[in-house]
Amino acid sequence: MSAPRLNLTHDAQARSWLASAHGSDFPIQNLPYGRFRRAGSQEALRCGVAIGDQVLDLGHLSAQPDWLSAAGVDTALATRAAQAAGRDLRELMRIGPDAWHALRVALFLALREDAAPQVQQTLMAAMTAQSQAEMATPVQVGEYTDFYTSLHHARNVGLAIGNGGLVTPNFFWMPIAYHGRASSLGVNQRLHRPLGQAMAPGAQQPVYGPSQRLDYELEMAIYIGQDNDWGRPVPMAQAESQIFGMGLLNDWSARDIQFWEMAPLGPFQGKNFATSLSPWIVTMEALAPFRLPFTRAEEHPQPLPYLDAAALRSHGGLDIGLSVSLQTAQMRSQGQAAQEISRTNFKHQHWCVSQMVVQHTIGGCNLRAGDVLGTGTVSGPTEAEAGAIIELAKAGQQPITLVSGEQRSFLLDGDAIVLRGRCERPGAVRIGFGECAGEVLPSVNG
Amino acid sequence: MSAPRLNLTHDAQARSWLASAHGSDFPIQNLPYGRFRRAGSQEALRCGVAIGDQVLDLGHLSAQPDWLSAAGVDTALATRAAQAAGRDLRELMRIGPDAWHALRVALFLALREDAAPQVQQTLMAAMTAQSQAEMATPVQVGEYTDFYTSLHHARNVGLAIGNGGLVTPNFFWMPIAYHGRASSLGVNQRLHRPLGQAMAPGAQQPVYGPSQRLDYELEMAIYIGQDNDWGRPVPMAQAESQIFGMGLLNDWSARDIQFWEMAPLGPFQGKNFATSLSPWIVTMEALAPFRLPFTRAEEHPQPLPYLDAAALRSHGGLDIGLSVSLQTAQMRSQGQAAQEISRTNFKHQHWCVSQMVVQHTIGGCNLRAGDVLGTGTVSGPTEAEAGAIIELAKAGQQPITLVSGEQRSFLLDGDAIVLRGRCERPGAVRIGFGECAGEVLPSVNG
Repeated sequence: MSAPRLNLTHDAQARSWLASAHGSDFPIQNLPYGRFRRAGSQEALRCGVAIGDQVLDLGHLSAQPDWLSAAGVDTALATRAAQAAGRDLRELMRIGPDAWHALRVALFLALREDAAPQVQQTLMAAMTAQSQAEMATPVQVGEYTDFYTSLHHARNVGLAIGNGGLVTPNFFWMPIAYHGRASSLGVNQRLHRPLGQAMAPGAQQPVYGPSQRLDYELEMAIYIGQDNDWGRPVPMAQAESQIFGMGLLNDWSARDIQFWEMAPLGPFQGKNFATSLSPWIVTMEALAPFRLPFTRAEEHPQPLPYLDAAALRSHGGLDIGLSVSLQTAQMRSQGQAAQEISRTNFKHQHWCVSQMVVQHTIGGCNLRAGDVLGTGTVSGPTEAEAGAIIELAKAGQQPITLVSGEQRSFLLDGDAIVLRGRCERPGAVRIGFGECAGEVLPSVNG
Repeated sequence: MSAPRLNLTHDAQARSWLASAHGSDFPIQNLPYGRFRRAGSQEALRCGVAIGDQVLDLGHLSAQPDWLSAAGVDTALATRAAQAAGRDLRELMRIGPDAWHALRVALFLALREDAAPQVQQTLMAAMTAQSQAEMATPVQVGEYTDFYTSLHHARNVGLAIGNGGLVTPNFFWMPIAYHGRASSLGVNQRLHRPLGQAMAPGAQQPVYGPSQRLDYELEMAIYIGQDNDWGRPVPMAQAESQIFGMGLLNDWSARDIQFWEMAPLGPFQGKNFATSLSPWIVTMEALAPFRLPFTRAEEHPQPLPYLDAAALRSHGGLDIGLSVSLQTAQMRSQGQAAQEISRTNFKHQHWCVSQMVVQHTIGGCNLRAGDVLGTGTVSGPTEAEAGAIIELAKAGQQPITLVSGEQRSFLLDGDAIVLRGRCERPGAVRIGFGECAGEVLPSVNG
């Protein structure tokens, strides 16, 4: 795990010739990847890069590689990277970090205000307004794993459901996880409230019907960039170079279904009905200015050697501000904006991203380009920093009151959730993750 | 769920012109699908059908569709089905059961002893000896889910680990499951003993190293044939038509890693280092003569209406004989054959295949062609019918003694496991599943 080096693409003075880039989630220092087609079209999905309010179409650009030489970076690697991304982002991922860097530099120079006019013209012709783009998951996800790395979340949920905040001892020794379901991942999901079984306290038999305890979970998504061979664990020193980037993830959870099913096999139907992603992958290179030391309170076990590295203590953490907003159907019909109901930071997690990669592969499990690792719910140390409504509303015992006067213990039909993420530090240009949005519809048999 | 109707392809008198078919696992009444290339070649994998000791190459055949008309079945659907399978088995799967049936009839007629000589010639030219074929997973598996449907297994493990055979109450109300890992699925796997954490009873901190309690699990694999749309549960009446066929599955399990990790999130690294499949998918149509009534002892809760159907009681079950054989390195070096260490039948499971599909999709989760559902360990009512060594050897308290004089509590390096499956009933021709084989290698750091 080598230290992230800042380079010209992190230059805080740099500006794009595209006016909308400055001050947006997607300035020239960000350059996240996604997949899109023009809204209403039947086009094949193409890989694009967000800049300001536009999507730069890499599929379109790969047919006219002149922009690379005109931008002064016609190296073989940048050309190869641009063409790979133009076909499928996973192709770019598999080439590796040097290629990711080469394409980032090329895009940065071509979008910077001093780019040659003909380069600007070529790129402008390859842009679509984000408002006119229909987004998909930013890459075709092969498999999805969900970790559980927030001690605050684990304690909050335990307190809310009456176990006194007890956390299982394995939590402190390794980032624990379960395999999730990739087929039901999506962006801007309008999801039907799931049907399933729940067992009421003291009941003799379960009830089958729509979930009565629907929740969201504020998480981040880690996108695997490089494959590791089956049977070959990834060591700490190599773990971060396996990661392409990160996004936002809403791990919708039906708590009544989940708590009835999860002993002994873990969460299954309480989670697999839907999982929402934000449409953009912010690369690890874009996140380099926002690294933090990753340390752990002395009262907790320190990581075993295979999960440890000196570099963690200098820059293993990530300073990413996160928030959750809720808009009810009533708020929407009355023109009220979504209300922010919590705000926290990714830096509070008990395990960091490289430890998750190491732990996932330590037995020999092979990760593949495009796989997603969820970080688990991100909750901070105070009550207002809780990443799920089961924590905010104490499992229904203390419903939250919204600006509309409505109360919520769990989500009702018509509720829309938006997650946001943002990195801000002195001396760096602010970058954002865009939005991870989703809305609850009535159950299909409801 | 309509009753399985026997048709000409189940004719017990029918024989193939290929002599090796008769009496083998793969007579003309079976016709299972797999993927192969010629051993030692770098060819792309192709879809093939097993007949006797040969693989019939559907990729090769699709270039010369004359055999269909010569066999007397040049219907548009059979032609379309053969061409789809020639490209990718998932394409055939997605067309649906009528196409599966049309291709089965076509293959049956072309392989039957009364097929025209030129048809026989065409097919013979498209055959490769199984001994010369390198097999892969029979389809590219998108996602893998593992159920837990044997009450005998659940009780046996509970007794072995000292909880008195306690089974969680949810087991009796629905087929419970967890999502597994598809990337580490394979055939004929030679798997490194996994590294991981384990916590010894009474210890203060976990130990990291090679698993000391490596086990196999005798399971069956259910191959999903048709997609269901996201948000659209599959009802019981439709569930079986979503299933293309079945195979054997060895859910290798590192019990020490598993038992430390699995509360509260379920099995993860104790399982995801490797899962072995048999190379052939036996279709549900081939299994039609081996259906049994599926009923449940009155002492247990009967299925809730959404998991029930009258058809279950006439033919919801499957009569599939299963066995586990073990060959140690010593036995291999001394020319001793593998020893059968247990034998059971799939009919003992507490939940049936259609109930697993319904339960998986009931919240809206979408299954896709090529997905695999593991049935969970298959153990029968007697001790000799146990599907895992943790049951046979009572979690190490009563090691089993092999014909070689060696003892086993758990698997040692060099141990090879072979699962077999076979259907036999009066009036029907015996069909088999082939072998699901795998061998344990030392850990990568061992």
